[in-house]
Amino acid sequence: MINKKLAKIWHGCDYNPDQWLKYPEILEKDITLMKKAGINVVSVGIFSWAVYEKEEGVFTFEWMDKLLDRLYDNQIFAILATPSGARPPWMAQKYPEVLRTSQNRVQNIYGGRHNHCFTSPIYRDKANEINKLLAIRYGNHPAILLWHVSNELGGSCHCPLCQSAFQDFLKQRYKTLENLNDKWWGSFWSHNYTDWTQIESHCDHGETDQHMGNIEWNRFTTNQTIDFLKEECKPLRQFAPNIPITTNLMCPYTPELNLHKLVKELDVIAFDTYPYWHNDKQSDWDIASKVAFENDLYRSLGNGKPFIQMEATPSLPNWHTVNKIKKPGMHILSSLLMVSQGVDSIQYFQWRQGRGSNEKFHGAIVSHEGSENSRVFREIAELSNIFSRLTPVLGSRVTAEVAIIFDWENMWGIDNCKALHSDKKHYAEMCIEHYKSFLKMNIAVNVIDQTYDISKYKLVVAPMLYMLRGNFAEKLEKFVANGGEFVTTYWSGIVDEYDLCFLGGFPGPLRKLLGIWSEEIDTLYDNQYNSFEIKSKDIKFTKKSYQAHTICDIIHTETASVEAVYGADWYKDKPALTKNIYKKGKAWYIASRSEEDFKDDLYTHIAQSLSLKQTINTKMPSGVIIKERTDGENNYIFILNFNDYDVSLKLGISNLKYISGINIKDSKIKLSAYKYSIFQY
Amino acid sequence: MINKKLAKIWHGCDYNPDQWLKYPEILEKDITLMKKAGINVVSVGIFSWAVYEKEEGVFTFEWMDKLLDRLYDNQIFAILATPSGARPPWMAQKYPEVLRTSQNRVQNIYGGRHNHCFTSPIYRDKANEINKLLAIRYGNHPAILLWHVSNELGGSCHCPLCQSAFQDFLKQRYKTLENLNDKWWGSFWSHNYTDWTQIESHCDHGETDQHMGNIEWNRFTTNQTIDFLKEECKPLRQFAPNIPITTNLMCPYTPELNLHKLVKELDVIAFDTYPYWHNDKQSDWDIASKVAFENDLYRSLGNGKPFIQMEATPSLPNWHTVNKIKKPGMHILSSLLMVSQGVDSIQYFQWRQGRGSNEKFHGAIVSHEGSENSRVFREIAELSNIFSRLTPVLGSRVTAEVAIIFDWENMWGIDNCKALHSDKKHYAEMCIEHYKSFLKMNIAVNVIDQTYDISKYKLVVAPMLYMLRGNFAEKLEKFVANGGEFVTTYWSGIVDEYDLCFLGGFPGPLRKLLGIWSEEIDTLYDNQYNSFEIKSKDIKFTKKSYQAHTICDIIHTETASVEAVYGADWYKDKPALTKNIYKKGKAWYIASRSEEDFKDDLYTHIAQSLSLKQTINTKMPSGVIIKERTDGENNYIFILNFNDYDVSLKLGISNLKYISGINIKDSKIKLSAYKYSIFQY
Amino acid sequence: MINKKLAKIWHGCDYNPDQWLKYPEILEKDITLMKKAGINVVSVGIFSWAVYEKEEGVFTFEWMDKLLDRLYDNQIFAILATPSGARPPWMAQKYPEVLRTSQNRVQNIYGGRHNHCFTSPIYRDKANEINKLLAIRYGNHPAILLWHVSNELGGSCHCPLCQSAFQDFLKQRYKTLENLNDKWWGSFWSHNYTDWTQIESHCDHGETDQHMGNIEWNRFTTNQTIDFLKEECKPLRQFAPNIPITTNLMCPYTPELNLHKLVKELDVIAFDTYPYWHNDKQSDWDIASKVAFENDLYRSLGNGKPFIQMEATPSLPNWHTVNKIKKPGMHILSSLLMVSQGVDSIQYFQWRQGRGSNEKFHGAIVSHEGSENSRVFREIAELSNIFSRLTPVLGSRVTAEVAIIFDWENMWGIDNCKALHSDKKHYAEMCIEHYKSFLKMNIAVNVIDQTYDISKYKLVVAPMLYMLRGNFAEKLEKFVANGGEFVTTYWSGIVDEYDLCFLGGFPGPLRKLLGIWSEEIDTLYDNQYNSFEIKSKDIKFTKKSYQAHTICDIIHTETASVEAVYGADWYKDKPALTKNIYKKGKAWYIASRSEEDFKDDLYTHIAQSLSLKQTINTKMPSGVIIKERTDGENNYIFILNFNDYDVSLKLGISNLKYISGINIKDSKIKLSAYKYSIFQY
Repeated sequence: MINKKLAKIWHGCDYNPDQWLKYPEILEKDITLMKKAGINVVSVGIFSWAVYEKEEGVFTFEWMDKLLDRLYDNQIFAILATPSGARPPWMAQKYPEVLRTSQNRVQNIYGGRHNHCFTSPIYRDKANEINKLLAIRYGNHPAILLWHVSNELGGSCHCPLCQSAFQDFLKQRYKTLENLNDKWWGSFWSHNYTDWTQIESHCDHGETDQHMGNIEWNRFTTNQTIDFLKEECKPLRQFAPNIPITTNLMCPYTPELNLHKLVKELDVIAFDTYPYWHNDKQSDWDIASKVAFENDLYRSLGNGKPFIQMEATPSLPNWHTVNKIKKPGMHILSSLLMVSQGVDSIQYFQWRQGRGSNEKFHGAIVSHEGSENSRVFREIAELSNIFSRLTPVLGSRVTAEVAIIFDWENMWGIDNCKALHSDKKHYAEMCIEHYKSFLKMNIAVNVIDQTYDISKYKLVVAPMLYMLRGNFAEKLEKFVANGGEFVTTYWSGIVDEYDLCFLGGFPGPLRKLLGIWSEEIDTLYDNQYNSFEIKSKDIKFTKKSYQAHTICDIIHTETASVEAVYGADWYKDKPALTKNIYKKGKAWYIASRSEEDFKDDLYTHIAQSLSLKQTINTKMPSGVIIKERTDGENNYIFILNFNDYDVSLKLGISNLKYISGINIKDSKIKLSAYKYSIFQY
Repeated sequence: MINKKLAKIWHGCDYNPDQWLKYPEILEKDITLMKKAGINVVSVGIFSWAVYEKEEGVFTFEWMDKLLDRLYDNQIFAILATPSGARPPWMAQKYPEVLRTSQNRVQNIYGGRHNHCFTSPIYRDKANEINKLLAIRYGNHPAILLWHVSNELGGSCHCPLCQSAFQDFLKQRYKTLENLNDKWWGSFWSHNYTDWTQIESHCDHGETDQHMGNIEWNRFTTNQTIDFLKEECKPLRQFAPNIPITTNLMCPYTPELNLHKLVKELDVIAFDTYPYWHNDKQSDWDIASKVAFENDLYRSLGNGKPFIQMEATPSLPNWHTVNKIKKPGMHILSSLLMVSQGVDSIQYFQWRQGRGSNEKFHGAIVSHEGSENSRVFREIAELSNIFSRLTPVLGSRVTAEVAIIFDWENMWGIDNCKALHSDKKHYAEMCIEHYKSFLKMNIAVNVIDQTYDISKYKLVVAPMLYMLRGNFAEKLEKFVANGGEFVTTYWSGIVDEYDLCFLGGFPGPLRKLLGIWSEEIDTLYDNQYNSFEIKSKDIKFTKKSYQAHTICDIIHTETASVEAVYGADWYKDKPALTKNIYKKGKAWYIASRSEEDFKDDLYTHIAQSLSLKQTINTKMPSGVIIKERTDGENNYIFILNFNDYDVSLKLGISNLKYISGINIKDSKIKLSAYKYSIFQY
Repeated sequence: MINKKLAKIWHGCDYNPDQWLKYPEILEKDITLMKKAGINVVSVGIFSWAVYEKEEGVFTFEWMDKLLDRLYDNQIFAILATPSGARPPWMAQKYPEVLRTSQNRVQNIYGGRHNHCFTSPIYRDKANEINKLLAIRYGNHPAILLWHVSNELGGSCHCPLCQSAFQDFLKQRYKTLENLNDKWWGSFWSHNYTDWTQIESHCDHGETDQHMGNIEWNRFTTNQTIDFLKEECKPLRQFAPNIPITTNLMCPYTPELNLHKLVKELDVIAFDTYPYWHNDKQSDWDIASKVAFENDLYRSLGNGKPFIQMEATPSLPNWHTVNKIKKPGMHILSSLLMVSQGVDSIQYFQWRQGRGSNEKFHGAIVSHEGSENSRVFREIAELSNIFSRLTPVLGSRVTAEVAIIFDWENMWGIDNCKALHSDKKHYAEMCIEHYKSFLKMNIAVNVIDQTYDISKYKLVVAPMLYMLRGNFAEKLEKFVANGGEFVTTYWSGIVDEYDLCFLGGFPGPLRKLLGIWSEEIDTLYDNQYNSFEIKSKDIKFTKKSYQAHTICDIIHTETASVEAVYGADWYKDKPALTKNIYKKGKAWYIASRSEEDFKDDLYTHIAQSLSLKQTINTKMPSGVIIKERTDGENNYIFILNFNDYDVSLKLGISNLKYISGINIKDSKIKLSAYKYSIFQY
């Protein structure tokens, strides 16, 4: 459990009463309405610095004292934020160094939020000071469940302080400039540095093309963000040691942060999520599969522990291009998807729509109208009721036999490299495409990076494994040698962690494991296609030919068998899918991008041969997600219909104990649009 | 009349002889050609500062003396400009502060035109000095009809002088920072200011999201532009009190200027117009309806007084992406559209194509070829002949029973708000869409904002009345109570003039008047549609169902009746069009965007029930515009065919006195493509 | 011959062993592999400054000594570069003035390459110093065939030093400011300068609209680039007088450089070429015709002397959006196209793929795999074999009776002018469109500008001859008077070399020669079309009507005959194609853009009437290029199939002596996809 003080599914929201201090009647009404809505926890103080510290060193906490007391008196708990996500104007005016500098080397002026330098000693001092005051004052307050450190960490700063910190970071990493010049391939374009101060972060009017510098800048930015986060946590851990710490992560919106590394500072994982439901380009089912991937990633970031949805909209966002209301049912359905994947807390931005400024039209539980008489309020209250029936689920886990590798540093390498189709590298999208095949089969997946232990899995899938870091190639060999199965694709085994190409033939250190050599790699224009022509005898493919597109790796088998070949162009009949039996296991290589059916068929074969556990082993209608949580004894099954039409399922299981949603009839279940069902067995 | 010295329709152009001082043969020929073309007035001196003042304080006016004398000797009158629209290089070099600073805080270097700071004391002094010299020297010159102050006012400056003036403006408006912080909802993102100097204009590397700051910046820019304009006018009013003042407005190209406010400094309204005739996306009829809307706006800006088209091209522009010639007939037709809506003066840019620089290929009456032997010259001369028959029209007015609200501050509010579909807010476009229904019915319309008296109208139409300013809600209530009819749409009654949302339920102060409550508002993606299903019994709709799109307001009736409902999605059967009988009048609410037919049918019903005056009450072929001017005794009817094909009309009126164009035959008239007819009755 | 030391077709590549100094086994293998590949020359030292001069004034040349010796020992020759294309970080750090400043007046920081100011005295000194050392050390080395000065010259710098040099350039050109103000039409927008220091280069936050300033800036940039090039050449010519000089040109990627002027400093022409073969928008045949045009331009730049392809990829580039492999056969085919047009040296970027940084995935002869066992390596070796059979071709020339005018200053004028369709001015594209008709007829063409002697041609084609420079109009008159034939189009004879419009009627000084007057010019939107309706009696057009689009010049004949008229719109039946018999010759005017067939038919007529020499006078299948080189005695015919399918040709010539590729059978030849044939006769 995240915090035993509140042994229920948490249901709550950001709450900003500091915006309403001059509206006492509103503040009074809030508590009454929260109870009606079934809210049991709220996040407070996220952007309150200007209210806490109206002038430098002069602090006002009384309003927060009263707030926390009043909440606790009403058995509503609090997640208390540190306010570093935004700062008062006076601070920026007096100490411009606290503001961020863009890659164009222009220092920002005051404005927005998240506009601070992570290196600035002054900003670190200021944050430390207020965090200490908060920790001392509220460290033992019974209402507080959790620290919410800052907000949506992300971005980077290119100021002189950061440049200097970057140079120190490099010095520590490379020791000598000679080493750095060798690793960065410095003789290319006369780039050998002779003094550390010659190295700066990328910028449009300076260096953009030294890819290793760009990748190291992301490593530095991740480190510097962690370092700032640690500084923020110090007084919290010292003066309020019993309150666990989280922050709300923003994947995929902070590509420069390696979250697999950052999360080590956190006690609990939390995330924000704003999917584009009901858009005109994707089906809700496509969107749901992306959301499910992200949820599995967040759960994996926390090593499987229950985690928190910290922000979502109760109805619609205001910052999308098209701000569309979630259709009735979708809010509950998508919230239950989170819970089904391991979330124990559903929070929103925010409780009540503000009267002014940028986010006043963002959806909230209470609208400008102000009462409980709204569709949105009623849905929230209904979800609270559902959650009250889900208390047994609390703390239960998801177990997975499959790991998909989604590796930030690999993504940086791919994003920086000049090759293939520069607008269609699509690393994350490819990971999600492969993930979807497992989602369809009700097979649980963890999403990890190259630094994790893979020995406990039966199957490891690593699309576009361009950059091999640390001893990952060796780990993979050992994993397969011991009977594991490994699937990878084109554009794998290309560079080491210094973005230096492997010599001697791609896929470099994976060549032996995969039993193939990649001679060249072709890229297709938008209207050009090739195909996979199936040659395999033991794999049950449903079609003889599948579309191949965008990238065609031209490979030669060495020890691998050819399972499919190209159907067109000058490399017709060359291998397009290979399988290599390596000691006790197998290693697969998919040489081109494929249509969805191809991956479904391939992974169905692999799942069957590995006897991967499927939650319910039945043919699912498209658009239905089935997920399972377990505490070892009790298992909880969630069946979720992301279609806007009715579907019928034959479950083929008995002894299911009904918990919530639509019930079973004659071992069949009929789910209308956006409906769900929860059972225990 | 604009100026009794010239009691005719004015027909003229910008004239830049200062570019030709070294070509005396050209200057001589100009006068002869002007007479042949029927030109009776020219605008001079618009960009002549560098010729007047070759070095600081050393002035040369002799060329202008000679020019004005020669013009007057030939009975050609002059509109004399102040030259502040561009400045000599020496001034920018010596006093860089006269140049504008962009929102990125980079001060411009010399170049272009309209590149000056409205706040700069030096620039104000310099403009004052030369204006005074011009006023003293030419204030009594018999050729001069009008001052043309500066040129195409617009843009803004973000220099330190302007920032400081902005802070003073805010101080005067808000008195205390506490008040400003409350109104700007400052606690959001820790934005409470503690010193006026902390507030700066928006910029991409600073603040962009504090919407009230952005809106106030536009209010400030309008004020500062007015203030500069006033400064320019001072010496003119002092030393040349008998010459009226105008400037050429550029709507819709200067969205940051509230023209309803700015025009109070002017004696006469003038405007520039460059429509994209004959393009491949819109019909000429669509373009004409936009032009007609703008003309009605300009006339309304001048309280109905005759006004001036100050710039248009005699043939083609040179700065459009596609610079297309107006087809034969279109120039005369569109000029007559202006006159039909109240214009008494048609001027062009420009007399003669220059030999060099940026605008040398812009159409002019005289081309580089230099003679009168051109199609363009002949059309201008023909139009002069038509104008000579239109002298009786001079000074006559347009009377309107319908007002459309087009409110700049409301537009700023909508443009800044984050909500709905950020690429499709389309406030001005919606005003024009509603306007078009009246254009089709030959019903005159004024285009005003919320500060005007509305009591004299029978119908007020206010699409997307997001921001309610001053006492406009009360004025509307009183207007309807007294028997007026009011139509508004989704996204109305949302915020007050500080962009603070009304609490207690939208449409806020209009809720009682409209008899509805808007609970939520949905936005549709590009390929998503809904429909209006007609429920009304007394309105004669021609169809049972009309397309609804982009925005769907989800409302509840309180006292209103439901005239149409949605046909699809989860709010199927909820109200989409409502009517509220309020005391002696009615208030309509259109909850979604609609296809054109829907508005046509609704407004036909309203026009009939209010017996709105139609110029000619007959079924018009699409693409024909009929307009009327009156001096109380005599009425002038203009029939204009904007189609590229022939149309026939049955007028059903007799006793029309022929003035110009195609004549009536058996009470029918047949207009070929781009042809017109003018009658008196 | 380029250099008699190596009397063969040169086949080679950029070679960067300085990137591999720590990999001695690689360096050793390189020589062996080069011999296998048939490489006989390599370019070295292009970006080696940081390796030569690790700290200021401390030089290391030993690695280059060894390299050149080893190459020569193996009979591989060298093209030695000066290293100014990139500089060491220490230089930029110590002397920031060496870095370039953008038009936004922000000085670059260190990064990339080609990032230097051409004016900086320090950079000139530094380049002079190292060039002198290289010239002294290697001027007599037997391996060296050529100097490769810097790399891909291009770009411009807007720093204060360059501004000052620009002002000096203008002073020298215009003598007085009065003259400059007159020529620049300075009274427009008050732009009369009173001090030379008021004039700056264009910039987005300053001047963009003074077209003559922009054009002069390009003239200045060309001059300054030449001046820097001259400075670089000085020590080379002084200390190594026997080594000819070249640099690798980058048309069309350096539009600001007038190459017709720049090449006067070079002994040999060289160019880089990276076509987008096999894309999804154009056929390979379309791409080949653009490449062929560029080749003919490069040959013309060198007055017909054999020239060098200095860079191309052996397989695929890495910086295109879509990096596609050339299909088997295309590399050899396109290389032979170069040779067929006069190239005697085929070089690539580069020998071996680097391990790191920006270009590590650019195709090379040796891949990261490192051996000769690759498709690419084998194709290079095969091409070496073909070249060994082409030694007799060495030094032979191409003779042309047709000149197409492609004039950089004219392009600058057109690109700057505001008129027509701003996104579709397409000057270079139009030159290529006209060129293609001759390519189809196997008629050789030179591509020259207005400064060349045209008296030796039978036909001069000058599409869009907007700006008439020097005495070109007179030269054309004389040319036609003496029996030459001249073809031009709409938008010709508009301005003089100061971008001042001709007065008295377009096409200005060409009016008498062409016998027409252009009254106005219309521009069509994307979906609007007109047509050419044929009226001619003696020209054999294959169709009666051809599409006209984008631009329609509305002209009147004076002495010309009307050969085609417009088929639509208000200028229907006005002339669209005219022919003027002028003394012994003819002058044609094409008033609108046309479909391809129209130009083909017109030029077929002209070619026949002028008896222009066709290499093989037969009906070619589309997509086949036939080119010829001659040494006066022996003629070499290249037949190249750019289709991806088989074609058959009937040659109708006998006595062809087979050299390489597919052979003739029964005077027929059948070329499969991307195949070629080379004969002598």
